[in-house]
Amino acid sequence: MKAELRKGNFYAGVYLRKIRMKIHAECFPCLLNQVLKNARKLKPKMENHAIIDIQRAVMQKIIKENQTKLPYYGKIVYDTLAEYLHEIDPYRKIKQRDNNRVLKLIPSLTAQLAKSQDPLQLVVKFMIIGNTIDFGAPYNSDLWEDLEKINELHIPDEILDEFEADLEKSSQIMIIGDNCGEAVFDKIFVEYLKKHYPAKRIFYGVRGGPAINDITLKEAEEIGITSICNVVEGSACPGVIFEEVSPEFSQAFHSSDLILAKGQGNFESLEGISHESENRPKGSLYFLLKAKCEVVAAYFNVPIGSLIIKKEL
Amino acid sequence: MKAELRKGNFYAGVYLRKIRMKIHAECFPCLLNQVLKNARKLKPKMENHAIIDIQRAVMQKIIKENQTKLPYYGKIVYDTLAEYLHEIDPYRKIKQRDNNRVLKLIPSLTAQLAKSQDPLQLVVKFMIIGNTIDFGAPYNSDLWEDLEKINELHIPDEILDEFEADLEKSSQIMIIGDNCGEAVFDKIFVEYLKKHYPAKRIFYGVRGGPAINDITLKEAEEIGITSICNVVEGSACPGVIFEEVSPEFSQAFHSSDLILAKGQGNFESLEGISHESENRPKGSLYFLLKAKCEVVAAYFNVPIGSLIIKKEL
Repeated sequence: MKAELRKGNFYAGVYLRKIRMKIHAECFPCLLNQVLKNARKLKPKMENHAIIDIQRAVMQKIIKENQTKLPYYGKIVYDTLAEYLHEIDPYRKIKQRDNNRVLKLIPSLTAQLAKSQDPLQLVVKFMIIGNTIDFGAPYNSDLWEDLEKINELHIPDEILDEFEADLEKSSQIMIIGDNCGEAVFDKIFVEYLKKHYPAKRIFYGVRGGPAINDITLKEAEEIGITSICNVVEGSACPGVIFEEVSPEFSQAFHSSDLILAKGQGNFESLEGISHESENRPKGSLYFLLKAKCEVVAAYFNVPIGSLIIKKEL
Repeated sequence: MKAELRKGNFYAGVYLRKIRMKIHAECFPCLLNQVLKNARKLKPKMENHAIIDIQRAVMQKIIKENQTKLPYYGKIVYDTLAEYLHEIDPYRKIKQRDNNRVLKLIPSLTAQLAKSQDPLQLVVKFMIIGNTIDFGAPYNSDLWEDLEKINELHIPDEILDEFEADLEKSSQIMIIGDNCGEAVFDKIFVEYLKKHYPAKRIFYGVRGGPAINDITLKEAEEIGITSICNVVEGSACPGVIFEEVSPEFSQAFHSSDLILAKGQGNFESLEGISHESENRPKGSLYFLLKAKCEVVAAYFNVPIGSLIIKKEL
C-alpha cells in the first residue's frame, strides 16, 4: 500500500498488490446463499425443495468450473436461477424500479451539485454511494442513509487530486457500470464530465446480457445514458470476462486513458489486470465500490460497508 | 402444538407435527461454511485453496446424495474433512479437552444438585445446557454463561411433571448422547437415575465411530460412563442412521420405555419417527437440545439459542 487514507466511512488510496484476490473458501457458501436469497426475493412463494434443486444444479456446475475468478461463479448462480425460473431476465422489474427510484432523485441531486463548492468531490461520492444499491438487501435502506450523511464523507484530498489530474489529462474515459439504480448516479457523472470537459470522449460499459440486476443496453436506453455517451456491451455476467465482451467494449477499454470500474463484480474481474500481460489497460484504472462482503473488506483491510475509491498502480 | 410454554430462555411443550423437518435451502450453504469453519479450527494455517478443495469434494458428494435427512450430509462434511486432513479422528483432542473441562465441574455440579430443592429440574437443565457445547463457537462461552444463570431458567411445571411421570413408569431408559463435554452432564443424570431409581435399566447411546466432536465408545470409557450403565454404539455420523447402528443400539432403542435424544443431530434424525412405520419407538421420546441454527429455531418457533425440551407425541 503506497498510501492508505481514511476519513469517516471512506477508505481511499492508491494501491499495489502482487497477490490477486481469487475465490475464497468463504465464496462457495455465499454463492449458495445467493441462490436462496435471490430465489426467495424473486419468487417469495417458492418452495424449499425447488430452491434446493437450483442449489444442486449450481453445485453441479461449480465443481466443473476451474476458474479462480469470482464473476465466472456469479454467472453460474444467476444463469441457473434464470433457467430454473424460466425467465430470461428475472430482475427486469427490479432493475426498472431501481432506475426509476433514482431517476426521481435527479433534480435534487443536480441542485445539490450546482451549489456545491467542490462538485468533483460530490459527483464522485454520488458514484460510489450508488454502488450501495443491492437488491439482495432490504431495498436501498443504506442508499438513503448514505445519501443523508454524504456531507460527513470526504474523499481524502490526495486521492481526489490524483483522480482530478488523471481525469484532466485523459482524452478518453470509460466507466464500467454495475447495478441499475447505481447507473443513474453514473449518468450524473457523465453529465458532469460533458459540462466541464466537453472535448473528452466518454464510453459507458454495460453488461452484454442479463446478469442479476446489472445494467444492460436496454436499461441504459431507458435511463437515457445512450443519448449522452457511447454505450458498449461487455459480457453477460456480473463482471468482465474479456473473452466474451463485444469488440467495441474491448476497443474502448484498451484505448481509454482513464477507466472507472464500478462495484465488486468489476473489481473482482479487473483487479490486478495492470500487472498481467493480457488485457492490461493503457490508462489509469480506478475502482469505485462499496465493500459488501467480508472477503473484499478484508482484502482492502477496511470494515464491511466501507465506501472505497482505489487506484490500481 | 398441544402446549407451548415459555419461561426465560426455555421453550418446552408437547408437540405433534405432521410435516417432518427435512433439509432446507439454508443447509447447503451452512454445510460448506462448516467445512471452512472446521478446517480453520482444526488447522489454523490451512490455505484457502486447500479448504476450497475440501468444499469441492463435499459438493461432489452432496449432489450424489438424495437423502433429505441432515445427518447424511453432516456425515459427508465430517468424513471428507477427516479424509483430507489425513486423520481418522481430527477432533480427538478437542473431545478430550471438552470432557476434561466438564469433568472438573463435577464436584460443584453434584454439590449444587445435592442441596437443590428440585433436583430433577436441575439435572434435566444440566443435560440441556450441556448441549450448548459447540466446538465451532468460541469455546464454551455460552456454557459458562448458561450455567451461571441456571437458576433463572425454569422448565415449566407441566412438562417437567409429564417427564417425571414418564420417567417413573419406565423400566428401561435410553439416552442418546451427542457432544463430548455434554456427555459429562449426561453422566450426572445417569448417576441421578441410579441413585433415585436403582431398579431401572439404563442405556447410553454413543456414535459408532468418529463424527465431529460427538462421543464414541472411547470417550465414553474415558469419562467413566461405561462403568455405570450400558453403552451401545450407534452410527458413525452426527445423528442416528438406523441402517448403520449396532444391533445392541437398535435393541436398546426399541425396548426402552423412555428415550432422551440429545442435541440437534439426534433431533434431525429422530424427529417424527413416532409417526413412521419403521423404527417407531415403543416408549416416549423427548428431545433435549439448544437450537443452534435458524432452521431448527424457526421449526420450533423460538429464538436461536433457546434451550428446548420437547416430547414427541
